[in-house]
Amino acid sequence: MKRRAHARIPIRFGDVDHARIVYYPRFFHYFHVAFEEFFFTHVGRNYVQVIEKQKLGFPAVRAEAEFRLPLRFGDVLSVEVSVARLGTSSVAFRYQGRRGRRLAVVGEVTCVCVDMRTFRPRPLPAGLRRTLERHRA
Amino acid sequence: MKRRAHARIPIRFGDVDHARIVYYPRFFHYFHVAFEEFFFTHVGRNYVQVIEKQKLGFPAVRAEAEFRLPLRFGDVLSVEVSVARLGTSSVAFRYQGRRGRRLAVVGEVTCVCVDMRTFRPRPLPAGLRRTLERHRA
Amino acid sequence: MKRRAHARIPIRFGDVDHARIVYYPRFFHYFHVAFEEFFFTHVGRNYVQVIEKQKLGFPAVRAEAEFRLPLRFGDVLSVEVSVARLGTSSVAFRYQGRRGRRLAVVGEVTCVCVDMRTFRPRPLPAGLRRTLERHRA
Amino acid sequence: MKRRAHARIPIRFGDVDHARIVYYPRFFHYFHVAFEEFFFTHVGRNYVQVIEKQKLGFPAVRAEAEFRLPLRFGDVLSVEVSVARLGTSSVAFRYQGRRGRRLAVVGEVTCVCVDMRTFRPRPLPAGLRRTLERHRA
Repeated sequence: MKRRAHARIPIRFGDVDHARIVYYPRFFHYFHVAFEEFFFTHVGRNYVQVIEKQKLGFPAVRAEAEFRLPLRFGDVLSVEVSVARLGTSSVAFRYQGRRGRRLAVVGEVTCVCVDMRTFRPRPLPAGLRRTLERHRA
Repeated sequence: MKRRAHARIPIRFGDVDHARIVYYPRFFHYFHVAFEEFFFTHVGRNYVQVIEKQKLGFPAVRAEAEFRLPLRFGDVLSVEVSVARLGTSSVAFRYQGRRGRRLAVVGEVTCVCVDMRTFRPRPLPAGLRRTLERHRA
Repeated sequence: MKRRAHARIPIRFGDVDHARIVYYPRFFHYFHVAFEEFFFTHVGRNYVQVIEKQKLGFPAVRAEAEFRLPLRFGDVLSVEVSVARLGTSSVAFRYQGRRGRRLAVVGEVTCVCVDMRTFRPRPLPAGLRRTLERHRA
Repeated sequence: MKRRAHARIPIRFGDVDHARIVYYPRFFHYFHVAFEEFFFTHVGRNYVQVIEKQKLGFPAVRAEAEFRLPLRFGDVLSVEVSVARLGTSSVAFRYQGRRGRRLAVVGEVTCVCVDMRTFRPRPLPAGLRRTLERHRA
């Protein structure tokens, strides 16, 4: 049973800052890229469209990260996605980013399932919940 | 009569690339920031909302720029916006960006007025056209 | 005695995501913009150059934020910077972002003072420490 | 003989703007991603390091693009890189981006080979020139 999802993210020429290391807000973008890959691969493109039709959204309400290694242009970050916590209408994703075998960044982002027309929370759809259960850390 | 609009853009820590100069796609973002300032200042926030209610959009169909000076973190770019050409449903904005008195970047971006529901061109609204006429280069 | 530093940040057309609210990684960029403004205004441009000459850097080692209000194109975020904690070689900045009077985002980013040639921590310079002390939350 | 280089670029959740189509400056970023892939694949990572050691840089001096199709979150752009013109110290790259079989964006970016310490042009290294010759449009 596949429980882990990975995204391979090459550090780009414009991803670094004046100190020539990855501009730290970009790590949260990398997390989002890994989240998108997770959704398309494990939840399914069709289901994503269902969610879209139902006007569901998953805005982040909390995000945190620890930056352990400075990354540079040409490095490749491999981000693993798992589910740290699962509530009625919320889910906390955990991200672990490695350069080779070394842990470069760890993070957690909590999203709430909302009706995009009202921005009010609503329960996670059952099918999505089952998929998320299978990816618990 | 005020014919020119300026935006003052400080070069940020994360705006540069591995070569420690502004990552060139960012210049087009700076142009867009200047465009937004122009709209809010010279077209008017209320009118912007009118446009939004009418589901009008101004997607770029063409963009070009010449980069004459490399800019670095801490530099300040002053971007002047003017109207280079005005068609029935299109407008070409000209951007001139200076660091101090020296020209750092020049560009031109052509936008087409479209109905956002269909993405089909439609004539520029008369009020907007009058404003744009006053800012011809 | 001025103890607070603010940055005024208009939400730009390209700052939002597919859900038409600010793409959450961008909030950390806004924090960095506020940090830069704080440095230039309260630490001083000359001193920033001194730091640069001494090859000092302040990479983030930890960042967190809570997103309380979705922000949209045209909103203006006012970010207040203060110092939450001050160690020998580290400083935790606190950011509070408001739209009007409502708190939209709060965050904390811990930076470590390092020698950029080795990426090893070193004590905060005395002058910078004094400035930071004055901005304690 | 392989003469074309492609990069596959999924449009990300945060790549769009308030109009829910790709924020046009991002297309130039996509071009740069394709340029980086071209370099790593066709010029070679080792050679890239040689260039780095020789303090060579390839800043853009001119960029232009036509945007023919609005792209949205979930679309995939395939960018083909070729060489449009080759001078003593300059090279113009051509980019053609397709969504499926339809041309979505075409662009051209002229870079100049410079010594990064002085930002003065210098002739393209012979090995690089040979590689670029093989990719002429």
